[in-house]
Amino acid sequence: MIKANNPDITSWISVDKHSDFPIQNLPFGIYTDASVKHHACSAIGNYIIDLYELAKRGYLADVKLDAELFNQPVLNDFIALGKSTTRALRDKLSDIFNSNNQHLKNNSDDAQAVLKLQTDVKMLMPVRVGDYTDFYSSIDHATNIGTMIRDPKNALMPNWKHIPVGYHGRSSSICISGEPVYRPKGQMKPADAEVPVYGPCKLLDFELETAFIIGKSTQLSESVSTEAADDYIFGMVLFNDWSARDIQTWEYVPLGPFLAKNFASTISPWIVTLDALEPYRTKGYVQEPKVLPYLEYTGDKNVDIKLEVAIVPENNIETIVCKSNYKYMYWTMEQQLAHHTVNGCNINVGDMMASGTISGPQPIEYGSMMELSWRGTKPVKMNDGTERKFINDNDTVIMRGYCDNGKVRIGFGESKAKVLPAK
Amino acid sequence: MIKANNPDITSWISVDKHSDFPIQNLPFGIYTDASVKHHACSAIGNYIIDLYELAKRGYLADVKLDAELFNQPVLNDFIALGKSTTRALRDKLSDIFNSNNQHLKNNSDDAQAVLKLQTDVKMLMPVRVGDYTDFYSSIDHATNIGTMIRDPKNALMPNWKHIPVGYHGRSSSICISGEPVYRPKGQMKPADAEVPVYGPCKLLDFELETAFIIGKSTQLSESVSTEAADDYIFGMVLFNDWSARDIQTWEYVPLGPFLAKNFASTISPWIVTLDALEPYRTKGYVQEPKVLPYLEYTGDKNVDIKLEVAIVPENNIETIVCKSNYKYMYWTMEQQLAHHTVNGCNINVGDMMASGTISGPQPIEYGSMMELSWRGTKPVKMNDGTERKFINDNDTVIMRGYCDNGKVRIGFGESKAKVLPAK
Repeated sequence: MIKANNPDITSWISVDKHSDFPIQNLPFGIYTDASVKHHACSAIGNYIIDLYELAKRGYLADVKLDAELFNQPVLNDFIALGKSTTRALRDKLSDIFNSNNQHLKNNSDDAQAVLKLQTDVKMLMPVRVGDYTDFYSSIDHATNIGTMIRDPKNALMPNWKHIPVGYHGRSSSICISGEPVYRPKGQMKPADAEVPVYGPCKLLDFELETAFIIGKSTQLSESVSTEAADDYIFGMVLFNDWSARDIQTWEYVPLGPFLAKNFASTISPWIVTLDALEPYRTKGYVQEPKVLPYLEYTGDKNVDIKLEVAIVPENNIETIVCKSNYKYMYWTMEQQLAHHTVNGCNINVGDMMASGTISGPQPIEYGSMMELSWRGTKPVKMNDGTERKFINDNDTVIMRGYCDNGKVRIGFGESKAKVLPAK
Repeated sequence: MIKANNPDITSWISVDKHSDFPIQNLPFGIYTDASVKHHACSAIGNYIIDLYELAKRGYLADVKLDAELFNQPVLNDFIALGKSTTRALRDKLSDIFNSNNQHLKNNSDDAQAVLKLQTDVKMLMPVRVGDYTDFYSSIDHATNIGTMIRDPKNALMPNWKHIPVGYHGRSSSICISGEPVYRPKGQMKPADAEVPVYGPCKLLDFELETAFIIGKSTQLSESVSTEAADDYIFGMVLFNDWSARDIQTWEYVPLGPFLAKNFASTISPWIVTLDALEPYRTKGYVQEPKVLPYLEYTGDKNVDIKLEVAIVPENNIETIVCKSNYKYMYWTMEQQLAHHTVNGCNINVGDMMASGTISGPQPIEYGSMMELSWRGTKPVKMNDGTERKFINDNDTVIMRGYCDNGKVRIGFGESKAKVLPAK
C-alpha cells in the first residue's frame, strides 16, 4: 500500500467527514493570492498547503526538493521528476500533517505561512497542456447518442468495441474552474433551413468527463503498454467538455467536432494523483468481443468515482441533474493510453486525455443535457420550477466527484463555470 | 510595398537564380551546430545569418532587439513582438546585406561569425507549437476523396462550401525536415476481414500541405475577422501531413482522423514571412454559393506557391510525383482563421494551421498518393522503373515550394523525411 493512503492516519488539521481533502488525498495544484504570484500547493481540509513555503522552511529536506520547483506557474517540472518523487512528497506531507507529528503545528510562524484557507486563494491552471485528447469511451453514452442520431438497432459504430475512439481537441481553451464561458457563435443549419445561418449557439451543453494528466514523456516511435500505463499517468481532474450541439451537427462530418468544442473546456483545479485513487480501483464492463492483444489488461482498472452535475440559475436554486460514476467507462485509461501510443505518437508531461462523456445505464446517470433531455424532447425539471433542454445564459454548471469506500472519502473539488451571453 | 521586398535590391552575397533565399526572402528559423546550441537565424543564398551574432555585434541596434532574444530554442518570443518588429528586422537585414552596404562584408571577423554555410548547420523546430489545426480546404482534393470513397455525384459534403472544414491535430509529433518517420503500427480492418487486425500500416501516404504560423495571440471569446487576419499570421512552412490510410479508414468514424495522422508530420525549417509572400498574392476559385458575411473577404488572398513532391528510393533515383500550387485552395488562410476564431477560440503565437492536402485540377497536381494512384488502382511509374501505390519503407519524401513572379523567386527549402520500417 502507498504509505500516504493509509486509512488509519488522521491529521492535526481538522477535516470534516464530507471534505474532499482528508490527509489521504493530498492532491496538487497551483494557487495565487495578493502576495503570491504562483506557488504549487496541496490541500488538506479547508486549507491549501503552500509547497514553496514548506520547502523554503526546510520541511521537505528529506525528499530533496528545491523550493524554486514550487515557484513556477505550472506543475510540469515537478511532475516530470517522476512518481518516485511525487510519491515521496505525498508521503512526506502525510508525515508533516499526521496528528502524531506536532512539529509544524507547534511552529506557528511556519504553519501560518504554509496554510491558507482555500476560500482566501485563487486556483490557477495546474499544468501547461501540450496536447489535449478527448476519448469517447462510455458505452452508455455512445449507445445513447447512436440511438438518438442514427439507428437504435446499430447504435454503436462497427469500430466502437475494438478501439477506444478518440480525437484531438484544443488545449488553448482549457480553463480553470471559476472562469466564465461565453456562449459561442458560429454556423448552424437548422433542419428546416435551406442554407446555414450564423449566430449564437442555441443548444449549449455540458459533457461530464474526467481527464488524466500525463506524468512521463515518451519519444516519437515509442509505445506505452497497458501494463506500463499507470507509470505515465500522474493524476486526474474533472473535465467539462462544453459542447455546442447545433454547431457540431453541421460541422462534424467527416473530420469530427471542431468549433463545437474548442471555445472552452473547464477543469477542476486539483490534480488527484493516481496513487491516491488506487484504493478505489474496481472492475469495469466485460469487454466482448475480446480486444486485440495490445489492448488487453489485467487487474481492476476502472475507478469508483461518484460524479454529479448541478445547474445553478441566477436565483441560486441548485438542481442536481446527473449522478454518474467513472466506473461505467467501457475503456480504461490504461487502454486509452496504450491505444494513443501504439502508432508511436509521443506524449509529454502535462498532456491531458479526457474520458468522453461519462454516462451510466440509468437516465439520471446520463452525462449531458443531450441525453438527459433526450435531444430536447424530455425537458429536465429544475428545483426552481423551470425546465431545461440545454444550458441557458447565466446558468452555472458545477461538476463534483469523489471516491468513498466506507473508510476514506477523497474528492476532486469542483469544475464550475457560469455561461455568459454571446459577445 | 514592404521595403525588403523591393525586387531591385541585390546582395553582396552571391545568390544563384534558382536559390530559395534571395535577399527578398529573409525567412526565419533556428539552427544548431557544434558550437551553438540554438540561435535564431535567417537565410541568404547558401548561408544562414546568425541573428544572435548580428545583434551581439551591434548590427541590430537600430531595431532595438536584444541579442538574448535570438539565443532561445524557439522563435515564439521574437514573433510575439509583432509585425512592426519582425518587419523592421527584415528591412534591416535587407540593408545589411544590400550590395550598396559593405559594412559587414568589410568586417571579416563579424561576417565570419554571422554567416555559416547552410550545409554546415542543422535546422531545428522553429517554434513551440501550442495547438495544431488541419483544414481540408482544397476543393480538388475534397472532390477526389469524396468521389473515391463516397459518391461521384455528391463528392462534396453538404457543409463543404459553407465552412472551411477543419479538425485538431497533434502538435507533439510535428517534426523538422530531416527527421526519419517510422511506419506506424495500429488497428486496421481489411475489407475482406471479419475482425480488425493489428500490424504495421500498409497504406502509408504523404499529404502535400502548407501551414501558417500564428504571430499574435488572442484571448478566449475574441474573434479575428478576415480583414484583420493577416496581422495574426506570421508566415508559412511546407507541411507533410503523413497519413496511414488503412488506419484512418477504420478509426475515423465518427470523430475524425486520430492515430492515422498523429505519428508524425514533417515541416520545412524556414518560416517564410507573410510579408515576403505579399508580391505573390493571387485570386482563388470563385466561391459559389456565397459565403456567410463573417467569411467574406476582399482582395487577392490566395498565394501563387509552386509546390512539388518527390519520392527518392534508396537508389537515389528521384521521381517528382506531384506538381501542385497553393493557389488552388478554395478557402484562404484569412477565412480559415476567421472561422477558427468565430466562436471565441483563442489562438497563441506559434500555433500551426495547415491547409489540408493541396491538389489541383490535373492528375499530376494531386497532392497525395491516395489520389495520384487513385486509391491504389493506378500505380505511379517511378524513374527507376518501379511503381508506387503508396510509400514504401526506406523511401524519402521531399516537398518543395517556391514563388516566382518573373522578377524574384523566393522559396521554402524542403520538407524531407525518410520512412523507416515499423519498429
